[in-house]
Amino acid sequence: MSLDHPSAKPHDRLAAALSDDLAAVNRLIRARMASENAPRIPEVTAHLVEAGGKRLRPMLTLAAARMSGYGGPFHVHLAATVEFIHTATLLHDDVVDESRQRRGRPTANLLWDNKSSVLVGDYLFARSFQLMVETGSLRVLDILANAAATIAEGEVLQLTAAQDLATDEGIYLRIVRGKTAALFSAATEVGGVIAGAPEPQVRALHEYGDALGIAFQIVDDLLDYQGDAKATGKNVGDDFRERKLTLPVIKAVAAADAEERAFWARTIGKGRQEEGDLDHALRLLDRHGALEATRQDALGWAAKAKAAMQVLPDDAFRAMLIDLADYVVARVN
Amino acid sequence: MSLDHPSAKPHDRLAAALSDDLAAVNRLIRARMASENAPRIPEVTAHLVEAGGKRLRPMLTLAAARMSGYGGPFHVHLAATVEFIHTATLLHDDVVDESRQRRGRPTANLLWDNKSSVLVGDYLFARSFQLMVETGSLRVLDILANAAATIAEGEVLQLTAAQDLATDEGIYLRIVRGKTAALFSAATEVGGVIAGAPEPQVRALHEYGDALGIAFQIVDDLLDYQGDAKATGKNVGDDFRERKLTLPVIKAVAAADAEERAFWARTIGKGRQEEGDLDHALRLLDRHGALEATRQDALGWAAKAKAAMQVLPDDAFRAMLIDLADYVVARVN
Repeated sequence: MSLDHPSAKPHDRLAAALSDDLAAVNRLIRARMASENAPRIPEVTAHLVEAGGKRLRPMLTLAAARMSGYGGPFHVHLAATVEFIHTATLLHDDVVDESRQRRGRPTANLLWDNKSSVLVGDYLFARSFQLMVETGSLRVLDILANAAATIAEGEVLQLTAAQDLATDEGIYLRIVRGKTAALFSAATEVGGVIAGAPEPQVRALHEYGDALGIAFQIVDDLLDYQGDAKATGKNVGDDFRERKLTLPVIKAVAAADAEERAFWARTIGKGRQEEGDLDHALRLLDRHGALEATRQDALGWAAKAKAAMQVLPDDAFRAMLIDLADYVVARVN
Repeated sequence: MSLDHPSAKPHDRLAAALSDDLAAVNRLIRARMASENAPRIPEVTAHLVEAGGKRLRPMLTLAAARMSGYGGPFHVHLAATVEFIHTATLLHDDVVDESRQRRGRPTANLLWDNKSSVLVGDYLFARSFQLMVETGSLRVLDILANAAATIAEGEVLQLTAAQDLATDEGIYLRIVRGKTAALFSAATEVGGVIAGAPEPQVRALHEYGDALGIAFQIVDDLLDYQGDAKATGKNVGDDFRERKLTLPVIKAVAAADAEERAFWARTIGKGRQEEGDLDHALRLLDRHGALEATRQDALGWAAKAKAAMQVLPDDAFRAMLIDLADYVVARVN
């Protein structure tokens, strides 16, 4: 099956349609992750950047710029910017979460050390900042500066809120915007801005990225409780064991009676888990229809992403982005 | 003695002359370190920002802008930017160095945890980025983006070079520019740029900050081997015990015979230190005149800083910055 066949995965169709742009992004990333003075920097960065990430965020920027008729060179800078910010946050996240695996390989903090992950993350963040300054667009800088602040704020919020049973869906959404959606929405929005797209289109691109990012993260959190380990690469219940309060549990806590609440307080709030607790958690999620309600939320956000696209002119990239929104939730649909 | 008396410390005279501006900087810092959503952020930031730092870097920006005749509001944004970048690097440095004390108080990584220090540092970096975007000056953004990359690169370089006897004075200088001088020179330069100062003045402000920062760091490294613990708050030999290759040891290694080289290789390179090693290290430094040569280097950089100031119009701020360069090296003179 050809990659531009409509039944190919939308992600692969985007990659095929953007192959020249993506090659330019990869060249720019390799050039800018170099450091003559500190060879540790390209070592650590290459481990992550070249580990076969899907380049989803840079593709969103490239597609948004192309569908807005952009013909200049700076969508490539912005796509590289977005990938550098993403890589920097992964490096720092793995330190914060004490992760040992990422994309099926040992994490940088394990292969080198936490120090290298913290400082190389800082370097990539600074490099991303240089790249966006080169575009000469203050509006792009404003969008990305705000996204960077939202990302960091969401991460700090997650530190304190993840094990707090008072965390409600509003706080969850704020965390998800920080963790995932802020960079998605900035990625699509700056593509439109650099192309000089009309305001309603820029707004629509932002809304698409925001809704897609939220759908993406909700699906991820849902699969943690009902996924097929082989397909997702995650074990069922990782979030439960790590005491991460995600949407399914937030919904179950909101519907809990006193006894159930005590169960969540013990297992998530205090982290005193015993054998059989995960099975009991799954039964509680089922009793309150929490997984189905979470699934409906994900579908709702995907629908919102697709609706936003209606404002944009009908073209091949628009079709692929619409299909991408369906694809993101297809794993739970 | 009055603070504007010429024999008061130049730092205190600067603070007195810039008191209104500094008050505005402090207000802006407090407003921007707030986070409605994540209270951990202002807690951690306040611990550091309000711990009685000298605000040296923001004062450099304010003074540079004022002596260049600036009358607008944005020198305050830039001064706050520089302090946020400084605070973010301190938070990350303390994680990397596993420090337990800073400015006589427990570090944030000790009071909270490494996670909070990493993520709040990221937040402050993003906030600094927002502040500078508000100035609307792409040139300022370019200078600060480059400074951020130099800082992070210097820190990574230090990770690998600090215990490597092949580290020479050129590499040391690169590390020092990253650790200290890059933010000093950006601080003074952006003050001139925002004021629209003529190019030779902007260049001179950059050179002043660069040379001042290098002198500052060399003095710090020298005092580690010959300081008065009461006056400096550091114990003699901390860098030796932590196996940090600084300028005095680099000079002694360059002049070492085979036996001396073996000593440095064992104590710094391999970290196998025994009782009496510090005394022996001090004897070797003395034998090769390494401390005196380091002192001369510091004086040379201070002289360079003062010489750069000659390009600028004669005014009260210029006099204070010249005195500041003398003051920085007075502790070893």
